[in-house]
Amino acid sequence: MTDTLATTQSYPIARLREFSARVFEALGVPEDDAALAAEVLASADLRGIDTHGVARLPQYEQMLVQGRINPRPRISVVRQSPSTATVDGDNGLGLVVGPRANLLAMEKAETVGTGWVAVRNSNHFGAGAYYALQGLPRELIVQAMTNSPPQVAPLWGAEKMLGTNPLAIAFPALEEPPVVIDFTASALAFGTVEDAARRGERIPEGCAIDREGRMTTDPRAMLDGGALLPLGGDRERGGHKGYCLAAMVDLLSAALPGANWGPFPPPFPAHLPAPSRSVGMGVGHLFGAFQISAFIDPLEFRRQVDDWVRTLRSTRPAAGTSGPLIPGDPGHRAEAHRLVHGVPLIEPVAEALRSLSLRTGVPFD
Amino acid sequence: MTDTLATTQSYPIARLREFSARVFEALGVPEDDAALAAEVLASADLRGIDTHGVARLPQYEQMLVQGRINPRPRISVVRQSPSTATVDGDNGLGLVVGPRANLLAMEKAETVGTGWVAVRNSNHFGAGAYYALQGLPRELIVQAMTNSPPQVAPLWGAEKMLGTNPLAIAFPALEEPPVVIDFTASALAFGTVEDAARRGERIPEGCAIDREGRMTTDPRAMLDGGALLPLGGDRERGGHKGYCLAAMVDLLSAALPGANWGPFPPPFPAHLPAPSRSVGMGVGHLFGAFQISAFIDPLEFRRQVDDWVRTLRSTRPAAGTSGPLIPGDPGHRAEAHRLVHGVPLIEPVAEALRSLSLRTGVPFD
Repeated sequence: MTDTLATTQSYPIARLREFSARVFEALGVPEDDAALAAEVLASADLRGIDTHGVARLPQYEQMLVQGRINPRPRISVVRQSPSTATVDGDNGLGLVVGPRANLLAMEKAETVGTGWVAVRNSNHFGAGAYYALQGLPRELIVQAMTNSPPQVAPLWGAEKMLGTNPLAIAFPALEEPPVVIDFTASALAFGTVEDAARRGERIPEGCAIDREGRMTTDPRAMLDGGALLPLGGDRERGGHKGYCLAAMVDLLSAALPGANWGPFPPPFPAHLPAPSRSVGMGVGHLFGAFQISAFIDPLEFRRQVDDWVRTLRSTRPAAGTSGPLIPGDPGHRAEAHRLVHGVPLIEPVAEALRSLSLRTGVPFD
Repeated sequence: MTDTLATTQSYPIARLREFSARVFEALGVPEDDAALAAEVLASADLRGIDTHGVARLPQYEQMLVQGRINPRPRISVVRQSPSTATVDGDNGLGLVVGPRANLLAMEKAETVGTGWVAVRNSNHFGAGAYYALQGLPRELIVQAMTNSPPQVAPLWGAEKMLGTNPLAIAFPALEEPPVVIDFTASALAFGTVEDAARRGERIPEGCAIDREGRMTTDPRAMLDGGALLPLGGDRERGGHKGYCLAAMVDLLSAALPGANWGPFPPPFPAHLPAPSRSVGMGVGHLFGAFQISAFIDPLEFRRQVDDWVRTLRSTRPAAGTSGPLIPGDPGHRAEAHRLVHGVPLIEPVAEALRSLSLRTGVPFD
């Protein structure tokens, strides 16, 4: 298995984007929406967020084929004010509903200084960084958050009650690359636990619990009815803070627009257990855009961000390290490399896409 | 020493508030501003945030006496749009500048849906929860963040480059108490480390580094040129996420309004080392208010928050615990108790206030 995982082949990003777009079209998604959804996936592939790119396409396919996602949503604004809106995604692809809602937030920010759009009745919206990056060429700071199916126990709980609930935001610099922040409220990603289980390895102490709520380093104990812990882990190391962060994202992105909060968002991928109740509509997101010129001269701001980046980069390195990264560095490096050398897909992903190609008739390679 | 720390006497909140207000007045702060500043401190005392209440009064005194805080600031709006403003605090007390800027954010939210006010040239603003709580009677969700003098190393750094950078937000419920979130981006509070050093105890593993950037559980090694780690601790447990959170708060609350970001905010309390550069004006804050009715029917929202609270409270408890708390629970309990029984002050704090009383002529007990 290790050999298979290690075997990769690289694909030009344009080809992956085109493949995704044509697959979405083959599944009934209108051409413009399919192109948009493919762009969100390609953005993740380019920036090295391999869990949120084309590798997920078979999961979106499954949701569409099973009729659990509406390929042709009528996205509507159900409530609005000059700086806000609540959008109903009509159970469309989060990869389509998300970008359209984010665009509305950006347009409002350009009109009245900030724009905040909360979304209900949506689905998995891809990687949060995509949304944050959209603000940069428009001289906006964009923040995106979403709730997600439960994987995380509240501190002192023994079951999954909250999603990993990511938050992303990006800040434009002048000569330096932008600061791009995208992180979850859990200590570990679920994929990290799955991966450790496959490899027969342990997970770090203080990041997960078993079904009784006891700390465990055995990934199988977490997968078998346990849960991830919030960022920080146990109480004495700040696990209550990660829980607060997950709660904030849940209440803002799901309770505020009337989506399913807490343990109740619809499952994605489709094989996750169905929630016991529905308390709202679909998954929720919140997009917020700040017009930089509403606060400060934008050129001055970019210079300050340059200075911030250089200052943090010049931090004295911890023993045994080459010093701190700037948030966004790994993504910038992946993008520079992958634009030239293509996106490496491990063989199981390439195989899944070939299989998807056979099912949809869209050529892959 | 343990005996002295254990000796407490309780004081009615009204008396502490009155004492603080009269001390601020004695130090040249106008009556209205003094009352406001005293109210911010009293809010922390009531809710059990003992590090941010009247115990800090001697530190504010020192800053005022040394001329490092302006007792009579001319607070001004230097840039604004319908949903935003940048406020210059004229180096006033953060306890005065903060509430006035927060009020402006709330007023803007009531007019155009949200209000976002970034503040430069301010100082330590007290406990973030105070600001979040102001939104509740107005049917607003208020978020407050501030940067602060450096205590935290970026992941893989060996020196303090960022503040603990707290973020607070509160959500109104209907029958349940509100959800009140207030947390920092560091694993531990600086006070926790000081306390462990005094008691000769260890601090939890993975929360602090020594001056070489090596993990340490010795509080003295952290105090002697080391640093706190961001929430999450090391890389494998998500320390990069806490670093991202600290960076986000720093860039939004300090770089955006033109305050001192990163390691450069002015020291508070006064004995902290002076920063090597000034890159802006004073400390920065960001206040954001969401008008709930701009997104959803407010009564429906309150019902959903009730349901959220009850759902999370009914989480199956982890072995050996009585189950999860709801963010805000400890504060609500402290408030209920202290309104009746007064605020317990440990003897060193009471003694410091008696000494302050002698210096200012304001009677304490």
